[in-house]
Amino acid sequence: MTQPKRITSFHPPRRTLLGPGPSDMNPRVMTALAQPAIGYLDPAFVTMMEELKELMRYAYQTSNPLTFPLSGPGSVGMEACFVNLVEPGDKVIVCRNGVFGGRMIENVERCGGTPVILEETWGEPIDPQKLEDLLKAHPDTNIVAFVHAETSTGAQSDAQALCDIARRHGALTIVDCVTSLGGTPVLLDAWQADATYSGSQKCLSCTPGLSPVSYSERAIEKVKARKQGKVQSWFMDLNLVLAYWGETARTYHHTAPGNSLYGLHEALLLLREEGLENAWARHRRNYEALKAGLEAMGLTYVVPEAARLPQLNSVYIPNGIDDLTVRKTLLNDYNIEIGAGLGPLAGKIWRFGLMGYSSQPTNVLLLLSALSAVLGEMGYRHDGGVAESAAHHAYAEQHAAAAKAKRA
Amino acid sequence: MTQPKRITSFHPPRRTLLGPGPSDMNPRVMTALAQPAIGYLDPAFVTMMEELKELMRYAYQTSNPLTFPLSGPGSVGMEACFVNLVEPGDKVIVCRNGVFGGRMIENVERCGGTPVILEETWGEPIDPQKLEDLLKAHPDTNIVAFVHAETSTGAQSDAQALCDIARRHGALTIVDCVTSLGGTPVLLDAWQADATYSGSQKCLSCTPGLSPVSYSERAIEKVKARKQGKVQSWFMDLNLVLAYWGETARTYHHTAPGNSLYGLHEALLLLREEGLENAWARHRRNYEALKAGLEAMGLTYVVPEAARLPQLNSVYIPNGIDDLTVRKTLLNDYNIEIGAGLGPLAGKIWRFGLMGYSSQPTNVLLLLSALSAVLGEMGYRHDGGVAESAAHHAYAEQHAAAAKAKRA
Repeated sequence: MTQPKRITSFHPPRRTLLGPGPSDMNPRVMTALAQPAIGYLDPAFVTMMEELKELMRYAYQTSNPLTFPLSGPGSVGMEACFVNLVEPGDKVIVCRNGVFGGRMIENVERCGGTPVILEETWGEPIDPQKLEDLLKAHPDTNIVAFVHAETSTGAQSDAQALCDIARRHGALTIVDCVTSLGGTPVLLDAWQADATYSGSQKCLSCTPGLSPVSYSERAIEKVKARKQGKVQSWFMDLNLVLAYWGETARTYHHTAPGNSLYGLHEALLLLREEGLENAWARHRRNYEALKAGLEAMGLTYVVPEAARLPQLNSVYIPNGIDDLTVRKTLLNDYNIEIGAGLGPLAGKIWRFGLMGYSSQPTNVLLLLSALSAVLGEMGYRHDGGVAESAAHHAYAEQHAAAAKAKRA
Repeated sequence: MTQPKRITSFHPPRRTLLGPGPSDMNPRVMTALAQPAIGYLDPAFVTMMEELKELMRYAYQTSNPLTFPLSGPGSVGMEACFVNLVEPGDKVIVCRNGVFGGRMIENVERCGGTPVILEETWGEPIDPQKLEDLLKAHPDTNIVAFVHAETSTGAQSDAQALCDIARRHGALTIVDCVTSLGGTPVLLDAWQADATYSGSQKCLSCTPGLSPVSYSERAIEKVKARKQGKVQSWFMDLNLVLAYWGETARTYHHTAPGNSLYGLHEALLLLREEGLENAWARHRRNYEALKAGLEAMGLTYVVPEAARLPQLNSVYIPNGIDDLTVRKTLLNDYNIEIGAGLGPLAGKIWRFGLMGYSSQPTNVLLLLSALSAVLGEMGYRHDGGVAESAAHHAYAEQHAAAAKAKRA
């Protein structure tokens, strides 16, 4: 009998996760993950599922009844939206301004749909006028798909405008909110978005592996009225998943990932306790301090200021500085993980994430200080301490403004 | 802004899980689940992934390089096997002797394959002669799919015989080992099985949500030589998953469910520490004691003895006894979860699981004692204490046999 080599229990190093996700988990979430298993049809479990749906509706600001966590990572959430809504022959406009728009195109093709691509410069938000023009050129478009918050660049598109235009042209919308949910406003009911997915490990700061999704009535109607027969995926078929996560009696579909769901319940509870607006404001405050520090060091952002996600800061790597050496040194010497560039931006940018529980002033100061040290040692010329000073100054200004607002 | 009603942290009740899964987790696994997140490309994480693959090869008794945990429950493992191997037009023999064979047929159809169904009585193992005959009648069969251990009945089929027959007829095999892995011998290399999947929450006693899969070289060749273009699922496309879990450099595919993988690593380590043969023997010993007790109470098994899975014991519900009342009382009064019947067996059978960490003498005695009490109160006539006595006797005989073997 084959015996594996000596392997012992795995104990991960304690990192500070300041990349594009996963983010650090609140200890309350970690504790929740360690609770004992119970059955997926246990009345206690069913109660928790109902609470999860309600907490998720709050996070998404929606009253969509079909709002629940899919038992897979964000890429399963994406695929579930496409396989259910896109029928063979459907025309789908996909807005691409980064990696995840590209993945959407893959999904359309594998569903037998016809993608029409709206190309946008990476790092820029999607131009609503371009969508308007493309919909006029393709009046038979069934679906418009776009990424609200591009994880590969940190650009945020105007979801309200894009959804409005799509709806005026009679198209349903698929909206990727993987990196936005919990970090910047995601307002499904206001947007009237039709199919939305996110991930558990970004601004919700839960363990990876779950994808919160939400579907409008219009989306469900399209799934139920499919002309081309069954959804190609058994696991992702909403008609079947509904029997488990829907309003009525629970029917066995698959064994739900119980412990991860415990964690998500706690993570969403933390979000509700803090309050969505407070969470968005916190992400913005820490972004402002980080930005002050990065710019004081002479680093420049990839994304124009108006379209920047506070939770994902992409900056160009300075000339002559080796990407991998910096990231390795931050990881090995300081236990800090930052993100590399993806696709055409590989080796050209860094992505600093301040997501969910990772969005804390201590992490901003730590990152600026460690990055200053590493870049300084590599010969990058910048004034020592200037980055931290700029961040300190930004925080001081915020505190003064808050005190003034309180007095007023 | 919509505010959800008062929701507090979720604390699951402490159950004893003696149904068809999930099973109870060893505290070491729960502790592993609660560790901090790290990045999915972190060198420490990559090392853990390599160890996981090695531990999984031991559990599956295979040298297949492509042996890894898919980031989804067992039903994703099933679908991944079908979408990769079954091309539109392929002929697939599906052996059905329970619920999960039926799900396989669904998968074949959604992949555009042509299913040929080998029907077998629920509760019986698949008759190898029937497969032989069907393959002779359908010499153009590309794939044979069967469930090694039917979770809906507790019947075990002869995987070695079925794989041998399929191979002689030039067909690849897809084998469902969801309920067998870790509980009864699963010998992939000996069987020469081609695509196999399992679940994390049965005899491995880890949290649900992961599907250990393994693919032979022949299976990978078929995926790579697909004539009909891309795999219909982006998420499950082995060509893409390989870039993340394969032998070479790690390429980002999706964010791996880190904490669940920590748990699986620990669960597989526990299995290796115990030793596979010892784990199989333990499952058998506890089955024998449970069987002695159940039969002493006058309950009869659904599955003929030779094909019985020791980890999943299905018995007929006695006449006049209400299924739901018994299960509710066991859950509410004793915190014991047992399994209901599925499909045509709903309301007719109970399924008692002794899987992984749940397979312990204490659980056998507890279940027999609680079941005796509940059935007694409901007017089921049986001698008080006879079930426990029979189990005690079975354990005593095992101890005597072990002592005798030691002396010899």
